Amino acid sequence: MAPAKKGILERLDAGEVVIGDGGFVFALEKRGYVKAGPWTPEAAAEHPEAVRQLHREFLRAGSNVMQTFTFYASDDKLENRGNKLSFTGAQINEAACDLAREVANEGDALVAGGVCQTPSYLSCKSETEVKAILKKQLDVFVKKDVDFLIAEYFEHVEEAVWAVEVLKETGKPVAACLCIGPDGDMHGVSPGECAVRLVKAGAQIVGINCHFDPMTCVKAVKMMKEGVEKAGLKAHYMVQPLAYHTPDCSCQGFIDLPEFPFGLEPRILSRWDMHAYAREAYNTGIRFIGGCCGFEPYHIRAVAEELAPERGFLPEASEKHGNWGAGLEMHTKPWVRARARRDYWEKLKPASGRPLCPSMSSPDGWGVTKGHSELMQQTEATSKDQLKQLFDRSKSQ
Amino acid sequence: MAPAKKGILERLDAGEVVIGDGGFVFALEKRGYVKAGPWTPEAAAEHPEAVRQLHREFLRAGSNVMQTFTFYASDDKLENRGNKLSFTGAQINEAACDLAREVANEGDALVAGGVCQTPSYLSCKSETEVKAILKKQLDVFVKKDVDFLIAEYFEHVEEAVWAVEVLKETGKPVAACLCIGPDGDMHGVSPGECAVRLVKAGAQIVGINCHFDPMTCVKAVKMMKEGVEKAGLKAHYMVQPLAYHTPDCSCQGFIDLPEFPFGLEPRILSRWDMHAYAREAYNTGIRFIGGCCGFEPYHIRAVAEELAPERGFLPEASEKHGNWGAGLEMHTKPWVRARARRDYWEKLKPASGRPLCPSMSSPDGWGVTKGHSELMQQTEATSKDQLKQLFDRSKSQ
Amino acid sequence: MAPAKKGILERLDAGEVVIGDGGFVFALEKRGYVKAGPWTPEAAAEHPEAVRQLHREFLRAGSNVMQTFTFYASDDKLENRGNKLSFTGAQINEAACDLAREVANEGDALVAGGVCQTPSYLSCKSETEVKAILKKQLDVFVKKDVDFLIAEYFEHVEEAVWAVEVLKETGKPVAACLCIGPDGDMHGVSPGECAVRLVKAGAQIVGINCHFDPMTCVKAVKMMKEGVEKAGLKAHYMVQPLAYHTPDCSCQGFIDLPEFPFGLEPRILSRWDMHAYAREAYNTGIRFIGGCCGFEPYHIRAVAEELAPERGFLPEASEKHGNWGAGLEMHTKPWVRARARRDYWEKLKPASGRPLCPSMSSPDGWGVTKGHSELMQQTEATSKDQLKQLFDRSKSQ
Amino acid sequence: MAPAKKGILERLDAGEVVIGDGGFVFALEKRGYVKAGPWTPEAAAEHPEAVRQLHREFLRAGSNVMQTFTFYASDDKLENRGNKLSFTGAQINEAACDLAREVANEGDALVAGGVCQTPSYLSCKSETEVKAILKKQLDVFVKKDVDFLIAEYFEHVEEAVWAVEVLKETGKPVAACLCIGPDGDMHGVSPGECAVRLVKAGAQIVGINCHFDPMTCVKAVKMMKEGVEKAGLKAHYMVQPLAYHTPDCSCQGFIDLPEFPFGLEPRILSRWDMHAYAREAYNTGIRFIGGCCGFEPYHIRAVAEELAPERGFLPEASEKHGNWGAGLEMHTKPWVRARARRDYWEKLKPASGRPLCPSMSSPDGWGVTKGHSELMQQTEATSKDQLKQLFDRSKSQ
Repeated sequence: MAPAKKGILERLDAGEVVIGDGGFVFALEKRGYVKAGPWTPEAAAEHPEAVRQLHREFLRAGSNVMQTFTFYASDDKLENRGNKLSFTGAQINEAACDLAREVANEGDALVAGGVCQTPSYLSCKSETEVKAILKKQLDVFVKKDVDFLIAEYFEHVEEAVWAVEVLKETGKPVAACLCIGPDGDMHGVSPGECAVRLVKAGAQIVGINCHFDPMTCVKAVKMMKEGVEKAGLKAHYMVQPLAYHTPDCSCQGFIDLPEFPFGLEPRILSRWDMHAYAREAYNTGIRFIGGCCGFEPYHIRAVAEELAPERGFLPEASEKHGNWGAGLEMHTKPWVRARARRDYWEKLKPASGRPLCPSMSSPDGWGVTKGHSELMQQTEATSKDQLKQLFDRSKSQ
Repeated sequence: MAPAKKGILERLDAGEVVIGDGGFVFALEKRGYVKAGPWTPEAAAEHPEAVRQLHREFLRAGSNVMQTFTFYASDDKLENRGNKLSFTGAQINEAACDLAREVANEGDALVAGGVCQTPSYLSCKSETEVKAILKKQLDVFVKKDVDFLIAEYFEHVEEAVWAVEVLKETGKPVAACLCIGPDGDMHGVSPGECAVRLVKAGAQIVGINCHFDPMTCVKAVKMMKEGVEKAGLKAHYMVQPLAYHTPDCSCQGFIDLPEFPFGLEPRILSRWDMHAYAREAYNTGIRFIGGCCGFEPYHIRAVAEELAPERGFLPEASEKHGNWGAGLEMHTKPWVRARARRDYWEKLKPASGRPLCPSMSSPDGWGVTKGHSELMQQTEATSKDQLKQLFDRSKSQ
Repeated sequence: MAPAKKGILERLDAGEVVIGDGGFVFALEKRGYVKAGPWTPEAAAEHPEAVRQLHREFLRAGSNVMQTFTFYASDDKLENRGNKLSFTGAQINEAACDLAREVANEGDALVAGGVCQTPSYLSCKSETEVKAILKKQLDVFVKKDVDFLIAEYFEHVEEAVWAVEVLKETGKPVAACLCIGPDGDMHGVSPGECAVRLVKAGAQIVGINCHFDPMTCVKAVKMMKEGVEKAGLKAHYMVQPLAYHTPDCSCQGFIDLPEFPFGLEPRILSRWDMHAYAREAYNTGIRFIGGCCGFEPYHIRAVAEELAPERGFLPEASEKHGNWGAGLEMHTKPWVRARARRDYWEKLKPASGRPLCPSMSSPDGWGVTKGHSELMQQTEATSKDQLKQLFDRSKSQ
Repeated sequence: MAPAKKGILERLDAGEVVIGDGGFVFALEKRGYVKAGPWTPEAAAEHPEAVRQLHREFLRAGSNVMQTFTFYASDDKLENRGNKLSFTGAQINEAACDLAREVANEGDALVAGGVCQTPSYLSCKSETEVKAILKKQLDVFVKKDVDFLIAEYFEHVEEAVWAVEVLKETGKPVAACLCIGPDGDMHGVSPGECAVRLVKAGAQIVGINCHFDPMTCVKAVKMMKEGVEKAGLKAHYMVQPLAYHTPDCSCQGFIDLPEFPFGLEPRILSRWDMHAYAREAYNTGIRFIGGCCGFEPYHIRAVAEELAPERGFLPEASEKHGNWGAGLEMHTKPWVRARARRDYWEKLKPASGRPLCPSMSSPDGWGVTKGHSELMQQTEATSKDQLKQLFDRSKSQ
């Protein structure tokens, strides 16, 4: 029997770098197992082999955390807008826990149970109702004995605090991530103040995930860190950004981009962008460094390779990757062998191959958030009339 | 027991659309199982679960052809420039056949054994030597009884003809693809003339794969078709292009781009680009339509969705994809629901998010091909001195 | 004899729109009469016909202000770094006044004598010395009886205040413009605070000129206005921005751009950009609206055309310009006639025709300002050794 | 009295470089004297000081040819589509000759009388009618004794040949330029064949002007030269391209670009682009090198500076321009002084400052030319109904 693994807080307290995984919904959408729109994780029950394989790839790439594939797996979300599923929320959550545990056991990784924001909150349900929804997912995590918990992808710090309060009841370590940028949450609360509230609610790890590109997320976590330190509090920090460049995003991040979600390809970060990100995150004092939507296994591997000097080892998948492109020494063509050097890839400004496309977009700016009638969620499918109104409004922007 | 499947020629003769798969080396490189540089397919033996999963994803996405993951699996390539492998060529080729067959049996797909160009040819070995190298792979395909054979990724029609001649000896249907564009092969032979030579050598299906973006490849296949028809010959046509935009490429394709192979992200085609490609290929008279490097399962699914009216059915993975973005009707945010329409995605000009990068690159133009000393291949690793010479020459361009 | 024209303050007090002219140094550099680098205005004496013609073009385009072409015409600047001139500062300043007056008399325009920042200030000369330098130019303006005075292109509010104090002694109306953006002056003083200091020093009109694109300048003037109003003071506002897009500029503006000054072409604003600028400036409460470097007569005409409803008339040069492209109704080709409409030009996103170029640059960031030894000015030419040091430092950035 | 100047053929026969001027209609449109749409040159009579000044600037910049500002000054064009003018065609043509001669006499320049294509040709008038129209302009040129003649801006070689035939009757040297690219004229006649026809008609100098960027025009002139040489004929060559980048243009050039004519700013060539152009033209064997629409005096100066080694002298306006940016040695800021070197400017890829704009456009492709009813010209103004039809058709593209 293997010796017990070190827990998440042990690792972070010891100053170790913990590498997260990448986002499952986008990766599995491209592989054909997740539907863009509802973004629900029923594949954990429907196609376990696909989910297991993605876990394994992230493990090989260097991830120390297998997040259960339970994003948007709250009952109110699973049933949102006519999303018909043949598995119950409990079945999906349980299957996800089993898969994460199975692969975590194949290496040095912990299992993190994850919850995220709920349609109930957007629809102005009460604190009690929202907490009850989150509690249902949590029951599965307790039963399956995950190693720690992550509340992530919250746009409103108020709901995130509620989530932390629920998660804390388990006694397990709790991490909390907002999906906000330097401008703060949807109610205008600054990153520093958000972090303070989360720490006070009991989160031992705070940070940012999704919605913005790596450098923007690191900047926002830096503001969180400054807020926490200024308040005389203490915390660990994490960041799990997009693998998409988002220089043109406003407060709601990539959701507002005209390219979301089916035209984001030209924005995908290269592995070299990931090196720069990992270094910047590390230098900012963040030690739990992972990814979200858009991350593929090779992006996580690049993070692990950049931080190999600090960690003392390379990830398993680096057996298939030469340091800074060194594998190209084995290429057939001499001019490609000439690219086998750090200097070349660090300086490259890659072309888009799209001369008819711009480099930045004007994000949508509907400016609606919790409380606006347009954000009320519903279980029945969006009707044709509702769609027509949306199209018309969209064209008049 | 299932009824025997229709063979590749039966399908094409009947006017059916046959959908190919995507390129394995690039997809598995991102997943951590293939090393960029040598690009060899030892993962078939080392990590069969990863290869099997990718086959399955393409099958779900609509592929009718499972190509054995035997790219660059000739013995001379496997040992090129210090590439150390723990499996023999025969072991890799056999494992690849078994995986392709296993997944093909899960659906309506055929197994195609694939060979490609050899270092021996570039190093000016004789016809006899080159044919012997190809024959070794072929012996495995015969033993494993693949359904048909594909000779692909040849830059010189001369070598491709030799390959067709070898493959023909098996009696199985033979497809032959060059990796060339409208300017023709590396010796300046036009696409039309190349196609004629391949058909005369016995290929029943001819076309283009890799090196250029879809529209460029379709254009080149069109030139092949015109050449074949002008010569009074008959053939079927196939195309398996890159999933990267390459408007700036010259005759050697994306290998010459400064972004090859680690900075190609901004060039990745969207699913909507794939719709346009599939339609254009179909209209050109091509019926075997697939992909190569850069294709992910969702790209193949887009091809299958575009041609669903002609084929009469959607692929399995379309259960997770609304037609032209219809799944967005289930999105939380109203402005994203407003994007649930064909009109929106067809017109979108996606931004790169990279304002410091250009839209096109100046390709490398070393202009060397078979016969130049710089293209002689070797089994030992590239030496430091050799690398230094390459770097120096590269900087002086 | 013509009735006396209304003075600048009379006009502004009455709520009239006053349209400025464009920058002479850049326009005359392109015409072959000004040397980029020293940027001195000796052409007023050397080639009066060229200067007169440019004044006339701006007058025709709608300008109400003929600024004397006396930019950088202080003695210390005229002699900077080996600039050899055959005219004295007094001769140049006098010739410039005569030309401005001659053309102003041809229409409804006032003559404004202009002074700008001095090398003496950057070289840490005393207040007394700097004021003495400015006083010499002023003596000419008094002798030639210009209508009002403009202190413009100051990067440090401290020097601008000194200039206002000197100009006020004449009893003429004084306008004061800094060349700063929303981040404030080179010492970090905010636009609002800068404006307050200038108003307190006696400037009746305050604003921004040069260094940033129109929208950025308007934004900074808005901050000035808010500062002045918050301080309970009163002023008129002016803006004379670049005709170059500068989204990528940091605090020192376009000087820092790699394209300055010989590669700015792709950034030149179109006439339609000018319509948007004029409207925004007007809506912000700015009533003295002109231009600086990059403005050609047609840019000023566009400002005058946008504000024609407010002013009640079109400029003379509009006899050669159809409203919103209406002149195209007379074009030979039908598809060009189809562009004769506002809707077309307002929505157009013009392409650069430069697929190998990016859309934004990384500005130089040497971060040196008054007081750094590198900014000490000298009368002798830059030596080869000094140049070599600069090149080397520049390459290491 | 000055010695007689060498004629155009004497110069070219002696192998001298002859530098042309830039396009007057675009330059004077920006200065407020020409109306975009009709593009007629009545300013020669209305505002002679503006035309004279532009001639002088080109002379200072190095031009050896003062082209009379008589573009589109044929009677049928002057009256096209409701263009109301207060001067007769004869008056305009005479005034233009006087201005060109006056300035030519101030330096080493010749006067060239220019004619261009006529609405009559597009409207399918007979050879006799078209020739009669051209003859009227020619009568003025003979009376004013211009030094040589240029037939330029012809889209159809047929009409250009007619023009050459008319011009030849004067006995003066005749140059003939088409406004075509490598794809040939509007009837599909190749550049080589066009050139042969023009030479056979009697033109001593043949070439290309307008419609395409410099490198494209040089390429087309090269094809002309090859055609002429292959036919065993002899000629001199000239090129007067746009100062706009047009990589995205199809056969009708920049007229088809969505940016024509009011959004072309981002495409304007820099002076460094002009150096490359002048060198390429020279190396191609072209000796009459000038410019057309978009050229400002500094562009011509750059051509003259690039070819100074061959010509043995710099133009007068180079007194205001340091070689390859050397004037920046006199700049105030050290990081700008660091740009005073050829290496810097040659390598610069200037940014557009327009992140929301693409780098290339899709040209309009109405595909109509002589003979299509839509191209019939008329003297009355375009009616509202006609405009509405054009707008509707334009939107449906």
